[in-house]
Amino acid sequence: MDVTVAVDANGADLGPAEVAAGAALAAAAGVRVVLFGPADEMGDPPAGVDVVDAPVSIAKAADPAGAVRAQPDASIVRAARAVAEGDADALVSGGSTGPALAAGLFNIRRAAGIYRPALAISVPVPGHPVTIVDVGANTEVRAEHLVQFGFMGAALTETVLGIERPRVGLLSNGGEATKGTPLIVQAHAALSKRMAEGGRYDFIGNVEGNEVTAGKADVIVTDGFTGNVALKLMEGVSETMLRAIRDVATSSRRAKTGGLLLRPALLEFRDALDPESAGGAYLLGLRRLGVVPHGRFSRRGIAQAILLAARGTREDVVGRTHAALEEAGALRRGPLGTAPSEPASSVPSS
Amino acid sequence: MDVTVAVDANGADLGPAEVAAGAALAAAAGVRVVLFGPADEMGDPPAGVDVVDAPVSIAKAADPAGAVRAQPDASIVRAARAVAEGDADALVSGGSTGPALAAGLFNIRRAAGIYRPALAISVPVPGHPVTIVDVGANTEVRAEHLVQFGFMGAALTETVLGIERPRVGLLSNGGEATKGTPLIVQAHAALSKRMAEGGRYDFIGNVEGNEVTAGKADVIVTDGFTGNVALKLMEGVSETMLRAIRDVATSSRRAKTGGLLLRPALLEFRDALDPESAGGAYLLGLRRLGVVPHGRFSRRGIAQAILLAARGTREDVVGRTHAALEEAGALRRGPLGTAPSEPASSVPSS
Repeated sequence: MDVTVAVDANGADLGPAEVAAGAALAAAAGVRVVLFGPADEMGDPPAGVDVVDAPVSIAKAADPAGAVRAQPDASIVRAARAVAEGDADALVSGGSTGPALAAGLFNIRRAAGIYRPALAISVPVPGHPVTIVDVGANTEVRAEHLVQFGFMGAALTETVLGIERPRVGLLSNGGEATKGTPLIVQAHAALSKRMAEGGRYDFIGNVEGNEVTAGKADVIVTDGFTGNVALKLMEGVSETMLRAIRDVATSSRRAKTGGLLLRPALLEFRDALDPESAGGAYLLGLRRLGVVPHGRFSRRGIAQAILLAARGTREDVVGRTHAALEEAGALRRGPLGTAPSEPASSVPSS
Repeated sequence: MDVTVAVDANGADLGPAEVAAGAALAAAAGVRVVLFGPADEMGDPPAGVDVVDAPVSIAKAADPAGAVRAQPDASIVRAARAVAEGDADALVSGGSTGPALAAGLFNIRRAAGIYRPALAISVPVPGHPVTIVDVGANTEVRAEHLVQFGFMGAALTETVLGIERPRVGLLSNGGEATKGTPLIVQAHAALSKRMAEGGRYDFIGNVEGNEVTAGKADVIVTDGFTGNVALKLMEGVSETMLRAIRDVATSSRRAKTGGLLLRPALLEFRDALDPESAGGAYLLGLRRLGVVPHGRFSRRGIAQAILLAARGTREDVVGRTHAALEEAGALRRGPLGTAPSEPASSVPSS
């Protein structure tokens, strides 16, 4: 299978040239890339990379949905349209989240039976990576949305991350099924029922904050507000700890010597935590897969995002998610009680 | 001023004898303690500690409010009643949170003009401790509750932690005032207005997850669901990192030598992160101060909880909170538009 990934070259902190360099790395690894961005900033494309001149950027737009509507020539909109029209199989944003989500919703559109697209991220916890979904697409959700997030995250984790029969947990402030907000209690019951009916994944119940990095669950389901806070908190605490340990390792002559001896092992550890290796957040719930790298990523992270989008396409994350939701009876039903063959609406809920 | 702290000896993982040992340490440091628990398990009390035989424990009750009503002789209820009746100045639980909250609400009751009691905790981030409020008392809140949490947390941070003019931030998924759920957007506006009118504390706006440990704010305001998840996540990530670094420091002969040289500095760092030194969570918003140590605390953490409850009493956290809320116009108003001199209701909202 020959996979083509549409990449928006705008939005990355390091600029379109860095995104183009990432595209070149991905192309060298066997993925066809179509780059949408300012052609004059990206140089001559290498083999496997096509460039479409699309200099208009809406990466920093305050109102992403409005900007997508008003700027049909914006690079992210053209990239999404290429996916919608079948010229590419998956979408990779250059770093902006809101515009990628809005452009995806308007053009690629929701997959049949899906209520809301969501952002999933694989956090590189040493020894047991964990997928958190949603990390920011939906600040307010209903229980049936959280159920679908669980299946979407599990299908991603199974295929792209290669974890068999992922264990799915619901983030809450206590382990018992009765702990949490009324929404969480309701979602707990619904996830339990649907995952049992589907039979593909294991719902292990509520997961508390201290269990997120403990390897208890492979997929953590949460709303986009809590998930976004949790993800950034993990990044912040990791950075604070690494900085503090660096300070410790220079606090005395004895410690300094120890720090120098430990340095290679500590650098390896820091690399294992590096978000670039995870490739960014997956945009799930559309008819095609999307990946949103962090804006600060270098070419290495961008390349990883493209490779993972290609892998998710080859492994048919979208099709598997649909099948798993169908088996579990968790697809959104149309007005006549059947799953609509077209998305129920193409208007983003933001 | 002679401060007396009522301590529930039930609920700690290590048992009533360990709580009694913590009480002895606090008494040796000059605080009078009245211990409520099974007298036959606590031995002879040292000078400064009185023991009231109250063997009934509701520390593990599934329905704390119901248990408090049904068991007026339970140790936590008798301890709370001692505070309510003026026989003690502050309440320290042995480790249970729900029963302490319910017993406090029913007996000590809400302070005048307070909507909801909340749990605040000082997280020992090296170099800049941060107070998070609420960490679990209220899973669902309104904007005016979050406003009061901000003032309650600031008054605590100012007095007990000795941080002048604390900077107060609102936990959200983005820095701009428009980011977050509708509740957070509303709370942002209300906190901004009230803190400006009060003039004592600085509201610095939204704080993202990665900024919590970065020293941006001294007080972080959030609902009890998000706050509980955030607090436990920080504990979990710290533990995972410390364990991973220990693994790194034994990964090769060279690293092992380095690890040994670093060991004293790393142990010091681990101690600085130790939750026992923070004494547990503060129960704010009642007529008297409460402190809820973690259930797993040893005598050292229990003693610290008692000492901090005494310090908060001497520094008049409750009175200062009231004054700050009054200046800011953020007290709950009675039916005739004036702050009631009695709590508007003694029925817990749980």
